[in-house]
Amino acid sequence: MDKVVIPDSTAALKGSALAEPAALSAAVERSRHLRVNRVRDGILQSQTENDAVAVETPVAVEFNEINHAVMLATPDDLEDFVWGFCLTEGIVRSSDDIRDIEQERTALGIIMHVQISPACMQFLKERRRQMAGRTACGLCGVETLAAVRRLPPVAPPSRTGNAYLSVNEPPAQHHDLHAKPAGMTLVQLLQAMDALRAQQALHQETGATHAAAWVAAGSQSPSFIREDVGRHNALDKTIGALLRNSQPIGQGALLVSSRASFEMVQKAAMAGCPVLAAVSAPTSAAIALAEETGITLLGFTRGQQATIYAHPQRF
Amino acid sequence: MDKVVIPDSTAALKGSALAEPAALSAAVERSRHLRVNRVRDGILQSQTENDAVAVETPVAVEFNEINHAVMLATPDDLEDFVWGFCLTEGIVRSSDDIRDIEQERTALGIIMHVQISPACMQFLKERRRQMAGRTACGLCGVETLAAVRRLPPVAPPSRTGNAYLSVNEPPAQHHDLHAKPAGMTLVQLLQAMDALRAQQALHQETGATHAAAWVAAGSQSPSFIREDVGRHNALDKTIGALLRNSQPIGQGALLVSSRASFEMVQKAAMAGCPVLAAVSAPTSAAIALAEETGITLLGFTRGQQATIYAHPQRF
Repeated sequence: MDKVVIPDSTAALKGSALAEPAALSAAVERSRHLRVNRVRDGILQSQTENDAVAVETPVAVEFNEINHAVMLATPDDLEDFVWGFCLTEGIVRSSDDIRDIEQERTALGIIMHVQISPACMQFLKERRRQMAGRTACGLCGVETLAAVRRLPPVAPPSRTGNAYLSVNEPPAQHHDLHAKPAGMTLVQLLQAMDALRAQQALHQETGATHAAAWVAAGSQSPSFIREDVGRHNALDKTIGALLRNSQPIGQGALLVSSRASFEMVQKAAMAGCPVLAAVSAPTSAAIALAEETGITLLGFTRGQQATIYAHPQRF
Repeated sequence: MDKVVIPDSTAALKGSALAEPAALSAAVERSRHLRVNRVRDGILQSQTENDAVAVETPVAVEFNEINHAVMLATPDDLEDFVWGFCLTEGIVRSSDDIRDIEQERTALGIIMHVQISPACMQFLKERRRQMAGRTACGLCGVETLAAVRRLPPVAPPSRTGNAYLSVNEPPAQHHDLHAKPAGMTLVQLLQAMDALRAQQALHQETGATHAAAWVAAGSQSPSFIREDVGRHNALDKTIGALLRNSQPIGQGALLVSSRASFEMVQKAAMAGCPVLAAVSAPTSAAIALAEETGITLLGFTRGQQATIYAHPQRF
């Protein structure tokens, strides 16, 4: 599932699909079993059968008690998600900037109460004020189009050599990845992607979720595997898990079971990872951004085959 | 591709992937050819090959010169998209409310300048003011979670018998679809879905896009086929094309080549269509909403097989 625009409707939820008691339990389970009717050879079977479906829950992210956005997501690994979201959306630039995360489960969904550093909050408010400056509703289309791109200038060399874990000054900066080695062979990368397929537990159960993972330099096994009904969420969860566990994201490759769109490459760039491999197709904007930021972008990565759309020289 | 939150970054776009001259031509083409490197049997081929990729372009939607949202989308059928978006997001309730649409192509993407009726604009501003009331940035998480749901109360019987083409009073209302007949057999529906697969031209070329379509009551052929890098966009395009062509959306079924998430069912409900068939899996929230609104929801609709997750009694 996908990001939801900051909502602009106040429709009541009483008695609704999202408000019913089941939604509360949805906050703690990844899948749910229910009775379904199969159609076989074009004929509706009268006996119902048991089936598992992926739970999709609204997740609101608040920074310092101010709502930022609502996503529809698989309600697990939400702390990982918040960490990844904060980094890839350019809200924090260091793990130090995330002071506290609390989950609140409500009948409508889950609220993630995130405390970020005053400097980051000030910066976030400033960005929003600039965007909301002209009218109550936003800026003109051109300025808004420009803001689709969240990549700030390339990160300067940091004191620790790990820019996203270093200085405590917003905004987060992305990385010039051109000179970074892959740290692995193509064969290792393909093996990791193959292994990922077998480890997408929620997808195997429901058929409804995407996965993201990371393979460390020199390895051929996927790690930090995360699943979500939304592909952006899955990638944020994996990146967040890496960040929380102080892994060197840039010394490895990110794997996604989905397509690779502009925002997926943007997230890899913000995380400083030089290789992004997708099971399915990339888009034109994803390829252009990978070219620019120095990311090796693979699509249709399946078995022993793949197509490299940007920076093949890394392999 | 997916909906983008109303952006909150003012990062400059100069020299970027989205700003480069190629992005301008992206505004008029659905796919683009480029040179790629294949990996075969785990080995990088040194000769580059020609490949087609789907164009993904930022599309900003402005209502009465006030920006509303930016989507990353396939840049065709954008008038259809705007009509569908207006209806399924509850911004208009009648085609009369859409006064004019103009496309502006810029180096950063496409701006859709939409003129809507003063009453709808007033209502839209009011909704946004309510959402932005407490602080500069939004409401508390609970209120924001409630607003994920855009379905207003069920539409009252209209004077024309076609609620979404009738009276000129915002907001749009959704339909109680429980009593509506399917108007087709399961076999017809399965045939239409099969035929859709063969007609996804952009997907066949690029592997990167989703399709939506409609099959009229009594028919077994998909019509109003629309493709997009985002599945929500594809569905909005099909619904918008139906609306522009004064088709009785409720007397037929909507088909999508993707998964069925909460927002997809919400769009079908807002459009008043009693059947939604998806090629892939539904989510828990999608099923709950289909149950509530009276929509027959099919998943894994492939060949002669399908699974019915809500309201099988319609067939």
